[in-house]
Amino acid sequence: MKLEESKEKTKTVKENKEVCDMDGKKIVKLKKSLFISFLFIVFLFFKGYAQENKGGETKQPPPLTPEEMEIAKKIFFDRCAGCHGVTRRGATGPALLPENRTRLLGTEGLKVFITYGTPRGMPDWGRQGILSEKEIDILARFLQHEPPPPPELSLAEMKETWKVYVPPEKRPKEPQHKRNWQNFFGIVLRDVGKVAIVDGDTKELVNIVNTGFAVHILRASATGRYFYSIGRDGRVTLIDLWANPPDKVAEVKVCNDARSVDVSKYEGKGVNFKDKLSIVGCYWPPSFVILDGQTLEPLKIVSTSSYTYDTNEFLREARVASIVASHHDPLWVVNVKETGQIWLVDYSDIKNLKITMIEAERFLHDGGWDLSKRFFIVAANMRNKLAVVDTLTKKLVSLVEVGNKPHPGRGANIDHPKFGPIFCTGHLGDNTVQCIGTDPKKKPEYAWKVVVKVELPGEGGGNLFIKTHPNSPHLWVDRPLNPELSNKIFVLDKFKFEVKKEIEVPKEYAGARFVHLEYNKNGDEVWVSVWGRKDQPTAILVFDDKTLQLKHEIKGDWVITPTGHFNVYNTMKDIY
Amino acid sequence: MKLEESKEKTKTVKENKEVCDMDGKKIVKLKKSLFISFLFIVFLFFKGYAQENKGGETKQPPPLTPEEMEIAKKIFFDRCAGCHGVTRRGATGPALLPENRTRLLGTEGLKVFITYGTPRGMPDWGRQGILSEKEIDILARFLQHEPPPPPELSLAEMKETWKVYVPPEKRPKEPQHKRNWQNFFGIVLRDVGKVAIVDGDTKELVNIVNTGFAVHILRASATGRYFYSIGRDGRVTLIDLWANPPDKVAEVKVCNDARSVDVSKYEGKGVNFKDKLSIVGCYWPPSFVILDGQTLEPLKIVSTSSYTYDTNEFLREARVASIVASHHDPLWVVNVKETGQIWLVDYSDIKNLKITMIEAERFLHDGGWDLSKRFFIVAANMRNKLAVVDTLTKKLVSLVEVGNKPHPGRGANIDHPKFGPIFCTGHLGDNTVQCIGTDPKKKPEYAWKVVVKVELPGEGGGNLFIKTHPNSPHLWVDRPLNPELSNKIFVLDKFKFEVKKEIEVPKEYAGARFVHLEYNKNGDEVWVSVWGRKDQPTAILVFDDKTLQLKHEIKGDWVITPTGHFNVYNTMKDIY
Repeated sequence: MKLEESKEKTKTVKENKEVCDMDGKKIVKLKKSLFISFLFIVFLFFKGYAQENKGGETKQPPPLTPEEMEIAKKIFFDRCAGCHGVTRRGATGPALLPENRTRLLGTEGLKVFITYGTPRGMPDWGRQGILSEKEIDILARFLQHEPPPPPELSLAEMKETWKVYVPPEKRPKEPQHKRNWQNFFGIVLRDVGKVAIVDGDTKELVNIVNTGFAVHILRASATGRYFYSIGRDGRVTLIDLWANPPDKVAEVKVCNDARSVDVSKYEGKGVNFKDKLSIVGCYWPPSFVILDGQTLEPLKIVSTSSYTYDTNEFLREARVASIVASHHDPLWVVNVKETGQIWLVDYSDIKNLKITMIEAERFLHDGGWDLSKRFFIVAANMRNKLAVVDTLTKKLVSLVEVGNKPHPGRGANIDHPKFGPIFCTGHLGDNTVQCIGTDPKKKPEYAWKVVVKVELPGEGGGNLFIKTHPNSPHLWVDRPLNPELSNKIFVLDKFKFEVKKEIEVPKEYAGARFVHLEYNKNGDEVWVSVWGRKDQPTAILVFDDKTLQLKHEIKGDWVITPTGHFNVYNTMKDIY
Repeated sequence: MKLEESKEKTKTVKENKEVCDMDGKKIVKLKKSLFISFLFIVFLFFKGYAQENKGGETKQPPPLTPEEMEIAKKIFFDRCAGCHGVTRRGATGPALLPENRTRLLGTEGLKVFITYGTPRGMPDWGRQGILSEKEIDILARFLQHEPPPPPELSLAEMKETWKVYVPPEKRPKEPQHKRNWQNFFGIVLRDVGKVAIVDGDTKELVNIVNTGFAVHILRASATGRYFYSIGRDGRVTLIDLWANPPDKVAEVKVCNDARSVDVSKYEGKGVNFKDKLSIVGCYWPPSFVILDGQTLEPLKIVSTSSYTYDTNEFLREARVASIVASHHDPLWVVNVKETGQIWLVDYSDIKNLKITMIEAERFLHDGGWDLSKRFFIVAANMRNKLAVVDTLTKKLVSLVEVGNKPHPGRGANIDHPKFGPIFCTGHLGDNTVQCIGTDPKKKPEYAWKVVVKVELPGEGGGNLFIKTHPNSPHLWVDRPLNPELSNKIFVLDKFKFEVKKEIEVPKEYAGARFVHLEYNKNGDEVWVSVWGRKDQPTAILVFDDKTLQLKHEIKGDWVITPTGHFNVYNTMKDIY
């Protein structure tokens, strides 16, 4: 019985591998880890056997001082909660509850996992030197105790963290510099909690802004004037690109753990919501928070704790995975990960807030608009599907089966000569790129069906982002979570889907991975992060999209752990 | 400091008194309890003093065996959770958490409260003999432990309790008896878990149906053919009034604690939702549940755990106080008590469910439609206000200050010669009846303003229900929670608001209270419950609304603890 359990555990970990890694954890090389894992399974088997012969008594948790409890809570929140959930009930990683799991593994067993990781997802915190032996010991003991109740965060507490550095009335009425700010790039310097603003025309560093811890994404405001950044620690930063230099003008912490931010983009019918409101999606507390778009004053919190769409079980920890703003309506699309519900939030009157709760599929992750920006398409990564929502009728249109763990990022839209407009996704769990038709009126025979399925070279998935641009003939694909291919990007013809070029990380960045692709405003350059540890040489490489040749290397002491990088114009207009 | 605490406690208890009693707890006579309470405050003072001089150390909870824990959980859920909340975080009663309250009071202090109650709300469970000395001792020790996590209830668990006794296709196509079923009354026999169906024309008992524990309300279906009853235990019962005799045809338990039920009433624009769906509002788990209106199959659960509208603090225990169905739209009005939010739930597509979350006021309780059935008016009883929602625009229209703890029940609508249509409420906390104008188009000068404020004879409030009928010149008012006046009802001229008659409980029912008023279909009779303990003589008294004379006594062995009684036609049409 115990052997089965440990097998099941291994299976669960495998299934969850790549999704965890999306949060940017260091990947474990398959080959090196397999042997350790094998040894550990043998260890578990004998441990379980011994346990069973002791009569299967429930173990008591090992002692933990109040100080150690505080240390462990912080480590768990920073390093583990993203995958295992802050209440440890499991999400993209397995549950870590005392009964039947952590107390069975015991301190020594847990230390092995934390130190060496698992082949398919759990990072090797000890081996990487991110956690010390002492910290791992504390964490292993902590995990055998019942999870402490995680902290709440009320509006009053948020307001204590709220700072307006430059109030709206003191901000300039026009750009204070001559730069082409619509072609600025915001580059996340993940492990130092900073965002670099780089001039897309000149490739010059314009400024470095202190932001929240491990910024997950940036979103350009509806006018493009501002960047909103969201840190994993729930800190939102508002960066004014018209200032000279561009710098932060406000910030506030509205979650203990967060992944998404967006802005109100709608203008029409006599109202203009552009840059008026902002929204943050929290992992913990499970909620979204509506803020003043100009000052970041938190205005309203809405809980996303709710029932799974299919089995109707209550999840306190139903997290906001991603958010996009509509261009056609005063609407945010809020993807509630674990419940499989897509919430359309009408922000036109936040005191009488309208939400349409659409039953879709689990676990909702990342997605984007179709070419017309009427349909929103999102990955349900545990069920290998794309969910399509019609934001006009506010209904689910289709669930389309694609490959193993689709991860579109925001996807890639192509106006195809045969299929009409199509939306493409890559996959975490296989080496395909798949595209679905998105025009039910003019191309009903292709709508919401897979019309393209192409295999990339090399085995395994590990893709996080694919990207194209209306002005480009190409589709770019990264593979940062594929241990064998993380140093490569693949450039495809966007109509024929043939691989035109494989590009490798230059030797000077050996050991680093390619991740995240972004076009410049004109759509004739592609910017790619070369992402490595803090002590590795890293850079942003700029490729000419016509010749597919390296055109420029953005590097320097300040380029530390660069991950996502966002072009103002393309982000503002949702061009992908 | 400790004295202040105990003072504050007394104040809180006072404020919460009457609302608790609405759940039907035995009221404590003021005079008898005052002395005991005084003694107890002195006791608390010295206890607090002693505690302070011990250095204020935190006390450990007294021992409790697993068996005692189970007993205590059940007693707490049945008797205490209604007011104190199932998570013991307080609601209409104070919080009962170990830190700073229950551990300070200790076992002996808590036993005094549980045995003797408090002057203004807490029932005297021990003195009444409802709880034994042993049970009180267990409960007092239980309260010093951290509250155990209350049970969840998934769709699968609900379905295990779901029974269809007569499937829809086997039900008759027309009434199987010659009775005037639209004038049937459903009478709640509270403490025996039954509902009696009585013929309003002949006053004959037609049948007695076993339902859930302590039925809170009945609602007639949109066609009037069915009664839906909801027990405090979350059991819904569907009673077919066309069967001979009328009897239950389906039942299901969808909450662990519930107060409200309603049906879909909308027909129009080519769709007919009449009796198609039902909704139950739960206290625990905090949620509403949508059911098939014909079979009671549970279809969908929606959490109401959410943030308070004003301070934006998360409340896991945000309970559904009451629900009404719109006649003009496919809409239920769901009042989420503790958050102060009124949710308009559009049931036209439950897989893409639209909810408008309206910020109103705390704590939302009970309410009804205005005469036009466009505006919904509900009491926010902790803030002495009526909240008005326009269900056409789906916005809050007004918060109108009325008296101390308004309790309209469903209210009383009067088409007044001067003020136009008005909506009236009585109060738990004072002796006034107050009415507000409800016609912003034709009588804008009176709309959402108090236009009538009349004092009833006698001191104190204690009113639960007021009632009128379009065919009647009268407004009837009960005072069941007023210790001195619970044996009286007051009949007012509905235009002049003068008291025309005080009616006393007949001597044979001495000690019982008048509660709940309901007109017959024609509006020429008023039915009133004479409510007493199980061992007391009780009855339903029928008064002639013209002569105000007692016309008929409905009594017999089966009339046990009668509380609410609901006329099919008036409930179906929302006539009040």
